Amino acid sequence: MVLVVNMDLGMGVGKIAAQVGHAAVGLYQALQEKNSWREMAWKWDHSGAKKVVLQGTNVAHLLELQALALSLNLPTYLVQDAGLTQVESGSRTVLAIMGAEEMVNNVTGSLKLL
Amino acid sequence: MVLVVNMDLGMGVGKIAAQVGHAAVGLYQALQEKNSWREMAWKWDHSGAKKVVLQGTNVAHLLELQALALSLNLPTYLVQDAGLTQVESGSRTVLAIMGAEEMVNNVTGSLKLL
Repeated sequence: MVLVVNMDLGMGVGKIAAQVGHAAVGLYQALQEKNSWREMAWKWDHSGAKKVVLQGTNVAHLLELQALALSLNLPTYLVQDAGLTQVESGSRTVLAIMGAEEMVNNVTGSLKLL
Repeated sequence: MVLVVNMDLGMGVGKIAAQVGHAAVGLYQALQEKNSWREMAWKWDHSGAKKVVLQGTNVAHLLELQALALSLNLPTYLVQDAGLTQVESGSRTVLAIMGAEEMVNNVTGSLKLL
């Protein structure tokens, strides 16, 4: 699972971590809704549930990455923050993408680790 | 859901975020295993899936908080890192605790936000 953080929002460490938590649980839940995705989630979970956190530029960048992932049939989950703290309501904070490493690399392979 | 980070490990931002992701998904999965917990997870999820990230001192502190939470019948999940990056294998990185806010506050109410 790859998690791309919207660096444009200037979130603090705890805020970033909470938003990554939202994204990871959100995508995990979404994966339960389809048989083939559930199987993907199971395999991922039983091989260490790898999570890689990467830096995204801004909301436009996250939306662009999501569109690319969807065009490759990779499941995604984009967190919209409730905006109670630090960022405006509706801000897109983190994009989660799931899939085989070589597929996901087509989308996020050039991004820097956070 | 409260997530207590082991600050003693000196993890970077991305590492902390990934470990909080592990803890959040891990606890969410554990909550599916018991009817009353599943209901708790459902309610939490449908009221915004609040996640608060706090600072824990070290592994002894996380274990102490977990014991206290368990004595109050609060579900917990403690992440043991595979140790592929940054920290030693088996390191306890993040403790997740779930429950009504006033109950969880008995355990983590005095900790600082990350």
